[in-house]
Amino acid sequence: MMLESFVPVAPDSDFPLENLPWGAWEWLEPGSSAPRVHVGVALGEYCVSATELQAAGFLRDLPGAPPGVFSHGRLNAFMGSGRAAWRAARQQLQRLLGAGEGALRDDPALRQRAIHPASGVRMLMPAEVGDYTDFYASRQHATHVGAMFRGPANALQPNWLHLPVGYHGRSSSIVPSGVDVHRPRGQVLPAAGGTTAPVFGPSAQVDFELEVAAVVGPGNPLGAAIPLAEAWDHVFGLVLLNDWSARDIQKWEYVPLGPFNGKNWATQISPWVVTLEALEPFRAPLPPQAEPEVLPYLREGPYPHRHTYDVELAVDITPAAGPGGVPARAATVTRSNLKNLYWSFAQMVAHHTAGGCNLRPGDLLGSGTISGDTPGSAGCLLELTWGGRDALELQAERQELERDQGGKGAGPAEVGPGGEAIGAGAVEGKGGGGVVLGRRTYLEDGDTVTLRGWCDGEGGTRRVGFGRCEGKLLPCR
Amino acid sequence: MMLESFVPVAPDSDFPLENLPWGAWEWLEPGSSAPRVHVGVALGEYCVSATELQAAGFLRDLPGAPPGVFSHGRLNAFMGSGRAAWRAARQQLQRLLGAGEGALRDDPALRQRAIHPASGVRMLMPAEVGDYTDFYASRQHATHVGAMFRGPANALQPNWLHLPVGYHGRSSSIVPSGVDVHRPRGQVLPAAGGTTAPVFGPSAQVDFELEVAAVVGPGNPLGAAIPLAEAWDHVFGLVLLNDWSARDIQKWEYVPLGPFNGKNWATQISPWVVTLEALEPFRAPLPPQAEPEVLPYLREGPYPHRHTYDVELAVDITPAAGPGGVPARAATVTRSNLKNLYWSFAQMVAHHTAGGCNLRPGDLLGSGTISGDTPGSAGCLLELTWGGRDALELQAERQELERDQGGKGAGPAEVGPGGEAIGAGAVEGKGGGGVVLGRRTYLEDGDTVTLRGWCDGEGGTRRVGFGRCEGKLLPCR
Repeated sequence: MMLESFVPVAPDSDFPLENLPWGAWEWLEPGSSAPRVHVGVALGEYCVSATELQAAGFLRDLPGAPPGVFSHGRLNAFMGSGRAAWRAARQQLQRLLGAGEGALRDDPALRQRAIHPASGVRMLMPAEVGDYTDFYASRQHATHVGAMFRGPANALQPNWLHLPVGYHGRSSSIVPSGVDVHRPRGQVLPAAGGTTAPVFGPSAQVDFELEVAAVVGPGNPLGAAIPLAEAWDHVFGLVLLNDWSARDIQKWEYVPLGPFNGKNWATQISPWVVTLEALEPFRAPLPPQAEPEVLPYLREGPYPHRHTYDVELAVDITPAAGPGGVPARAATVTRSNLKNLYWSFAQMVAHHTAGGCNLRPGDLLGSGTISGDTPGSAGCLLELTWGGRDALELQAERQELERDQGGKGAGPAEVGPGGEAIGAGAVEGKGGGGVVLGRRTYLEDGDTVTLRGWCDGEGGTRRVGFGRCEGKLLPCR
Repeated sequence: MMLESFVPVAPDSDFPLENLPWGAWEWLEPGSSAPRVHVGVALGEYCVSATELQAAGFLRDLPGAPPGVFSHGRLNAFMGSGRAAWRAARQQLQRLLGAGEGALRDDPALRQRAIHPASGVRMLMPAEVGDYTDFYASRQHATHVGAMFRGPANALQPNWLHLPVGYHGRSSSIVPSGVDVHRPRGQVLPAAGGTTAPVFGPSAQVDFELEVAAVVGPGNPLGAAIPLAEAWDHVFGLVLLNDWSARDIQKWEYVPLGPFNGKNWATQISPWVVTLEALEPFRAPLPPQAEPEVLPYLREGPYPHRHTYDVELAVDITPAAGPGGVPARAATVTRSNLKNLYWSFAQMVAHHTAGGCNLRPGDLLGSGTISGDTPGSAGCLLELTWGGRDALELQAERQELERDQGGKGAGPAEVGPGGEAIGAGAVEGKGGGGVVLGRRTYLEDGDTVTLRGWCDGEGGTRRVGFGRCEGKLLPCR
């Protein structure tokens, strides 16, 4: 049975009453002089402020949550409160926002204070990220990248099938969707000429990485591991994550201590944290881990215990609008799925803490790039272009093109991001599927990268989506 | 000219009026029911609360510092205020605590509120660490470790002389001196038998790493690099840092993304941040970087521009007290110096931010293990025992032994940490320099590791010290 709200929600919305993802935003109340920070949930095209609802007397009976848990401007305290509090808040919000309940619906003053149009808010980071860890949990991605860097025979390192390989990322440079990022400068070794002398300048190999990150709920004390059986209880929800990467900088610097300046200039997340409760109808199996069998501290019971979620993932590149008023249009370059992981988030939590490392509420655990088996399912340009060898055509979908042009169909000639005319031949050469917006090995200045994620409802299950993780690559600052 | 305070300061104290390092602590005021957190400076055997002094009307004219900068329980806001504020606070405190000034000296009530005996406080982290970065800036350490892992021909990686190699560490598990840590469990590949199957259990190769960390002052906006010429202005001061490491876990996991569980179970710092102002009399040159010359963004002017500080460093291991009331005694296993770096902290700041990565006040930039040229100057057991091949004798210094035993000299037989008798032969075999307390390849449960650092004053310059970074290794939790 689908839930109905008195707040209008479009049938294809990412944010129905079944979802209620959590976020933080800045909102300027009409008549007020300074914006205030709210935390709450998304519903259709609206943001519902738990901050205001709690101040008005609702959402006060949340087992495990401290008083005023929504008054801090970030969700860390709520994330740390545990599943009983999350479930209670979800139930109370679904009732309060439901079509049949009048307490909020029939109180115009409270409705105005607590329900903000999404078009009028500025989304913030949902939580302060104490630490950000990035794993490397897609076997396809690790195999492809390993083959490029070390040859097919040494593609997977000896440890890869035994533990979820991960490393510590940079917390300070994590930004929410909507913040644009600057192309980094850095030290790289020129590919040509066999030189051993590096140069310093703008990266020529800026890439995205399609990831999903777990947002940590309750943490653990230093020295006390989280057993695998309890690991999911420490996950509040999931977000999309774009691990912006400069491949040329990364390649020169990463041996022996791992990526550093190639990654730490920007990491971007979708601002709405989709809870595990909302994802539960989309629970899906992961591949078995029989060869080799993993060690007992990482060994999960069979599905539905060992699991992920069936989250469709896509990446769009939207080149800068061309000259002469040609509108910017998106080309979908990647279609993947959260099922394309070898390691579960529970295994990542158990491994991360096995030696006693403490997690804190709001920490991020990135999955690593999520690549599938087919060519179009690779989660980064490094793979899609095989290290820059094979340029990728950016094709606008026919459907999107028609919408963009008011249903008139594609014009005869397109303009590329550099102003070059792109003939119709290229389009037809690809089977007539779309219009070519340009070609890419790596990203160009002005490109917007958009990550999307959604669970498609079937028969009585509504679509639950993640919204967007979107940012434009600006020139070097 | 040496400064004199009305607070008693022993001649060999680490904390004379010339030093005034900054820290945070918890103090239970007599007659009060709950401890309060203070920030302030160390002076001799006392902690002087800037929190109380500012509340009493002092320390209010600090250019660049927000009002109430000492009222937050941590020093991040003060660190972010910049050098003008730091200098003003230092000058005002030196005057206020000087022998000739009566404003504090002659106010018994304020003295009691603001001057706390160090023996009665609990030291806390001086700042919240947003991000912790660890570099690898000692050429000797990188060469030794590289030779062990990859052979002498490939000891230094191709990038090492071109950039300060570093990686992101874990912030959540950084603890101040005095907190004991637990031996971690983890996944390791057994050394014997040529197996490819890892096992899970307690690490058998727990090590310390002798480091110094720069504490970041004002940060930089995301996308805006800090030029080398301004880099020191972003350093508030230095602390000692023990990068506790589990070598067997690290060795199996670290390829290709760097150390993770081998390091993230504990990192420890000395609680007092020694400011660059206090270290200025001890400015010292670093080795030239002519072969190869570094790229312009890392190129420093000659000394005194390119510089470090002459900080003597030592590591002691104190085995657990033996049975039968034999007191615990320390053996100094490492003597090194902050001059043993190839990269300066300024270069680390400039490189870290070159791609736009933002630093925040209170961030830590670890130097990496600081090893010198001589065998006894290696900054970790991995080097001192050449990967566990050569056991190290823990020798109590003769002088310390005599003090421990009331000046009676060494007894004929010593008891090792496992209860085994250690004959006098071993002592005489080492030239009679000390009594052997035990042998180590890696650390044993119950061992206390103490890092010490100090600048020795000469002719009119007082000793300026760092105090201790000390923690005991407890068994697996």
